[in-house]
Amino acid sequence: MSTQGNTSRLDQIRAVAERLFRDKGYLATSMRDIADEMHMKGGGSLYAHIKGKEDLLWSIANEATDAFFAALETACAVESNPHTRLRAAIIAHLLVITEHLGAAAVYFDEWRHLTEPRRSQFMARRDAYEQQFQALLEACMKAGDCRAADARLATLHLLSAMNAMRHWYKPYGRLSAQQVAESLAEMLLRGL
Amino acid sequence: MSTQGNTSRLDQIRAVAERLFRDKGYLATSMRDIADEMHMKGGGSLYAHIKGKEDLLWSIANEATDAFFAALETACAVESNPHTRLRAAIIAHLLVITEHLGAAAVYFDEWRHLTEPRRSQFMARRDAYEQQFQALLEACMKAGDCRAADARLATLHLLSAMNAMRHWYKPYGRLSAQQVAESLAEMLLRGL
Repeated sequence: MSTQGNTSRLDQIRAVAERLFRDKGYLATSMRDIADEMHMKGGGSLYAHIKGKEDLLWSIANEATDAFFAALETACAVESNPHTRLRAAIIAHLLVITEHLGAAAVYFDEWRHLTEPRRSQFMARRDAYEQQFQALLEACMKAGDCRAADARLATLHLLSAMNAMRHWYKPYGRLSAQQVAESLAEMLLRGL
Repeated sequence: MSTQGNTSRLDQIRAVAERLFRDKGYLATSMRDIADEMHMKGGGSLYAHIKGKEDLLWSIANEATDAFFAALETACAVESNPHTRLRAAIIAHLLVITEHLGAAAVYFDEWRHLTEPRRSQFMARRDAYEQQFQALLEACMKAGDCRAADARLATLHLLSAMNAMRHWYKPYGRLSAQQVAESLAEMLLRGL
């Protein structure tokens, strides 16, 4: 998902694909479009790096899933109370989105174009991740740190409100990613 | 956007298109798919009712926009304080989504496939609508009913969190649309 620095040719292809999948959608993006952006003639040499468009989608979806799990694990590794742990998890999740907007578009929207069995495998990992958020929220409810009455509804709201940030967050805006993530975390936690 | 009752042939076509645009996306839906669902032979007779696929998209986008504006107007017509007015506006907005999930998919996602000048016209009306929500929120902030420090960030969060409901709301679920809308409104208002 990296777009800068000393990246491999495959990383560069993936970065271009992420951006195009986000801007135009997976279906409307051709291997030729990706090759054109890479200044590769005809698109033929793309296939030296990747088997096809769906392999790119799959690779991006997996990298995004890995990034969300890694961020959540780091946030939860700190010894703290349920409220602080949920706050850290929310901020970590939001920062994965702001740092990887293209991959987030695949993780949240374009994954639908994966074919089986990849589609089911992706959904299973995403469900496991969302389940961890629900467990964090339930721990807060149990500790009396949270007024939400319905854990499932509160989790759906929390996740969808966090994930909706991908639609409006602008990098290089007036506020830094960290500032936006912290403000949003406060609004979400107050709401819960 | 109606899907039941004594509806015209065009309304029926629109209802089928809404569902297909939501389930498969606009690009992946053909006029033939719509005709097949309508049990119309070949798709030719569809053109007696509608000029083409983009006209359906445009018609659905406009109906959705009209529904959001009408709901907001009704909610704001009641004489009340800024907090109560914002709460009514949030619930009204959420109920438009729950009642018109297919049209909501067009309003929030598939409108991107409109061509100019329709695309710009759609965006201008949507921006005007969102501006009205920001004004409601600013009135709450002015009245001291709201802790949010940044009106723009709070509006983006509010709108995107409300709109994200289209991804997880299930009609005929455990809770009614009204119950979900009220719970969500409480979480959002507490958060702001």
